[in-house]
Amino acid sequence: MSDHREAPVMPVQAFEPPYYLAVFTAVRTADQDGYRETNARLEELVRSVPGYLGMDYAQSPGGPAITVAYFRDAEDLARWRTDAEHRAAQQRGRAQWYQSYSLHVAKVEHSHGFTRAEG
Amino acid sequence: MSDHREAPVMPVQAFEPPYYLAVFTAVRTADQDGYRETNARLEELVRSVPGYLGMDYAQSPGGPAITVAYFRDAEDLARWRTDAEHRAAQQRGRAQWYQSYSLHVAKVEHSHGFTRAEG
Repeated sequence: MSDHREAPVMPVQAFEPPYYLAVFTAVRTADQDGYRETNARLEELVRSVPGYLGMDYAQSPGGPAITVAYFRDAEDLARWRTDAEHRAAQQRGRAQWYQSYSLHVAKVEHSHGFTRAEG
Repeated sequence: MSDHREAPVMPVQAFEPPYYLAVFTAVRTADQDGYRETNARLEELVRSVPGYLGMDYAQSPGGPAITVAYFRDAEDLARWRTDAEHRAAQQRGRAQWYQSYSLHVAKVEHSHGFTRAEG
């Protein structure tokens, strides 16, 4: 069986703590001009950040968008948060794309993963 | 303007650190019998947990479901994770509803919120 998704649904796994994550929860405005292009560029950029472990994204229709990005340590995450191109996108986001958002930067102390056995 | 959502889109806010969060990222199976009822019951239960601060949920079509729950401290979150009814639901989830999941329990060290000024 195959479908037309570009990649399989495969959330970021549970790593061995400690590691860091950033939860970004956003409500977007009606004006999303340029958002998609900028987001694609940021997704490309973040992959080159040392210590970047992965990212999950979800948005329910009519609901908030949740992005969770994972990094090996606090310095890696801080480097991404203060990256010049990322900063410029954040500024444009506040001016244009976001109605509101919350950012939570946190140190993972415990993690657990489950995958169903085949059969 | 109005729509038919039951509640406004209002993500959990950024609190004053430290506080705790749990990110639960799941891929569900085809068999979701009973899931909705159990989930509604758990959403009711969690609100009575001391130190519970709120929860955000999102799922893109065909993508993973992300739940982020916030608690005042580690003990509050542990109490919820080990609640008997919650435990029973977790067990049923592994047996029936979930293909795979990851859980990340983390201490928030930094937070930031933004809300657009009217006008």
